[in-house]
Amino acid sequence: MASPSPGYSITLRVEAPASFTATSELAAAVASAGAAITALDVAESRHDSMVVDVSCNTVDADHGERVRDALDALEGVTVHKVSDRTFLMHLGGKLEVVSKVALRNRDDLSRAYTPGVARVCLAIAENPADARRLTVKRNTIAVVTDGSAVLGLGNIGPAAALPVMEGKAALFKQFADVDAWPVCLDTQDTEEIISIVKALAPVYGGVNLEDIAAPRCFEIENRLREELDIPVFHDDQHGTAIVTLAALKNALRVVNKSIDEVRIVVSGVGAAGTAIVGLLKAEGAEHIIACGRNGAITAETAGDNESKQWLAENTNPENFSGSLHKALIGADVFIGVSAPNVLDESHIASMAKDAIVFAMANPDPEIDPVIAARHAAVVATGRSDFPNQINNVLAFPGFFRGLLDAGASDITPNMLVAAAEAIAARVSDDELNSSFIVPSVFDPQVAPDVAAAVAAVAHANNK
Amino acid sequence: MASPSPGYSITLRVEAPASFTATSELAAAVASAGAAITALDVAESRHDSMVVDVSCNTVDADHGERVRDALDALEGVTVHKVSDRTFLMHLGGKLEVVSKVALRNRDDLSRAYTPGVARVCLAIAENPADARRLTVKRNTIAVVTDGSAVLGLGNIGPAAALPVMEGKAALFKQFADVDAWPVCLDTQDTEEIISIVKALAPVYGGVNLEDIAAPRCFEIENRLREELDIPVFHDDQHGTAIVTLAALKNALRVVNKSIDEVRIVVSGVGAAGTAIVGLLKAEGAEHIIACGRNGAITAETAGDNESKQWLAENTNPENFSGSLHKALIGADVFIGVSAPNVLDESHIASMAKDAIVFAMANPDPEIDPVIAARHAAVVATGRSDFPNQINNVLAFPGFFRGLLDAGASDITPNMLVAAAEAIAARVSDDELNSSFIVPSVFDPQVAPDVAAAVAAVAHANNK
Repeated sequence: MASPSPGYSITLRVEAPASFTATSELAAAVASAGAAITALDVAESRHDSMVVDVSCNTVDADHGERVRDALDALEGVTVHKVSDRTFLMHLGGKLEVVSKVALRNRDDLSRAYTPGVARVCLAIAENPADARRLTVKRNTIAVVTDGSAVLGLGNIGPAAALPVMEGKAALFKQFADVDAWPVCLDTQDTEEIISIVKALAPVYGGVNLEDIAAPRCFEIENRLREELDIPVFHDDQHGTAIVTLAALKNALRVVNKSIDEVRIVVSGVGAAGTAIVGLLKAEGAEHIIACGRNGAITAETAGDNESKQWLAENTNPENFSGSLHKALIGADVFIGVSAPNVLDESHIASMAKDAIVFAMANPDPEIDPVIAARHAAVVATGRSDFPNQINNVLAFPGFFRGLLDAGASDITPNMLVAAAEAIAARVSDDELNSSFIVPSVFDPQVAPDVAAAVAAVAHANNK
Repeated sequence: MASPSPGYSITLRVEAPASFTATSELAAAVASAGAAITALDVAESRHDSMVVDVSCNTVDADHGERVRDALDALEGVTVHKVSDRTFLMHLGGKLEVVSKVALRNRDDLSRAYTPGVARVCLAIAENPADARRLTVKRNTIAVVTDGSAVLGLGNIGPAAALPVMEGKAALFKQFADVDAWPVCLDTQDTEEIISIVKALAPVYGGVNLEDIAAPRCFEIENRLREELDIPVFHDDQHGTAIVTLAALKNALRVVNKSIDEVRIVVSGVGAAGTAIVGLLKAEGAEHIIACGRNGAITAETAGDNESKQWLAENTNPENFSGSLHKALIGADVFIGVSAPNVLDESHIASMAKDAIVFAMANPDPEIDPVIAARHAAVVATGRSDFPNQINNVLAFPGFFRGLLDAGASDITPNMLVAAAEAIAARVSDDELNSSFIVPSVFDPQVAPDVAAAVAAVAHANNK
């Protein structure tokens, strides 16, 4: 399934003989090496030679080397330098901390810093609630990770997780004007993480937990929710659950089935799977079977794992016992947040008519979506290169925008449902079809709609 | 000594009868109430009335009320609203977190976030030193406080300390393009602060400790320096010491005395006083007496306080015993980092000829500088409304710029001396006089000079 991706975009600086056909020959060589050209700029033109920057998407690092070799093999052509555009973009980091106030002269200094700032400090000391009015707490959240479950990369640690957290913060700013700061903790001790986040809380109006391995993430989230007066959200759980529910609501509209009637199989019982089950239940789903590596979760298979026990109590009412593949026979909905290629075509074919398949394992789905689409009515993945991308970016920026706008101190289940409904509602009846069940991540109205929906629930909760 | 200050700047929205003399009458009323007008804008002009925004500096909140009353008392004049410009500047906080990379389309997303970011994460996991190249760690420091000794306000806690840390971060960015992030910790336990800062370190290229009470600050700084591989700087100690040494070097040039010969009395044995003594010693000062609340520190008076024992061992070679006032008799230099008004005119008069007085207690100095100047040859304070302001802003931005540029992992005493020399050297022989011993905080060359000096030492240390 590997195809050239902008995540592997490179730019080759190439010197070639000056001729009318030089650029087209370069382009042809790149194309025949299997890369996709995205830009071709003549950087210098001399009497007998020219320097050309060739940008193209490749499949992986080895592929980039083959493209280089293909160009080098052309008569008279020399590749001077290959730059990786992804790495170039990361040089020096992706965030900066900018002052919102000008400090041009002594008067500015006297107000933003000493002596004027002392009065602002005293106002907060006297009335702590003023911190939400007079400091960055009003608009700032912490993006907290311990680096234990980063993307599909696993336990790569806090330093290596930082580029993801920076990217997340950039998305928060871009889509919802939320100031987000990466907190990458050099500890994977549950109690230590809890006490550190509590100690950091004065600066923040919310906490977004990110890429923390299960089951540690459950304990951390639950305890912080109890012990902090700012909202705590684990995006891998609730962000995924919100967008999954939004997509499922629209997919059910496409196939004209009802959530309380469909048979749903969830593959994956980690953070995301557990949260998805919880939210589907809150929305009225009655027939859910959750499958781990060893098949359906039942009271017998749950063992002493707390979250599996919860799943056993809240799913599988008919106490089905057996493999994921067996569970899928006749099922209406497959929701995968598990591992690549755990399904093949026959498993999809065994599902009910007008089946819905969400294969969201990253970067490679539970089944090739092209194959799944031969049998299922609606197919979605986490990937951007297929239709129906189930992407948390649709949820988390607007969700925190709403929390901050409302000054919310807690996250409630009805906020998650409201966010999912707001996302689903961005796809109008006219637009809805089996290849368009979620709005584009660049739909500028998604975040404001989610924010308004969440803030409305927060205000209603406070009444 | 109270005079109108921009830290107490207010804007009054006033409705007045339309007339040629209206604005001048308003201005006269403000001036006769003792406030200093800074701006007068006609916001609206109607047939028979006008709305005027009157901005002025006042002495304190009560004074602002008196200005309001003075305007209200004018015939036909109504004050609609009084805005405090310092509070207005703080609404919503002073910092924002901004993305340095554009996220305009799917390709941008693919590089800054998933899937492209995964390769950057793996590169750091394989080679942790790459974090300084590919993440915000390259240019970012933490401004860490526990809120226990904020400005002159004391132990007001982490939330109330946040406006100061935000201001500090704004100064870092403004003067040296350092990204600084406030870390206000809701704990005042030494061990907990140490372990939290260690856990936060992956994101940062340096730590600036701020407004942490002595003696806790010493232990925290020492331990973090030992246990972290990024530089740790306590600004209240070393920032103050650097600028004090810079000012002293130039003051000695003015009076033509030598640092190894002068008799120096330091009043205040907290964080700043201790660091100043250390740095003066490093620069060759031999005759220092440090005085606490009960007079000169000696082996007998040090008790079991560790930093006082250090002072006893490193100062007062003649074992002088007695009060601050007695110590000052015949002294060449007074350096005060203690409390307001601990000296009067007679004490300054008792000092040696061509005495140097640095009265840096905030906001009110150890002695009124106008009175001190009757007897001393050079007088400096921490205030901006007198000549010779000894302000840490001269040191900390450039100091960290140099550390980050050099990728330094430690701070050494010769870096502090180099920074002080760079600041002192910004005052040329032509400019130097008793009222100009330190450069302006707005001198744009100070931070680059300090940065270059610190980086040069860092590189030399690594050889």
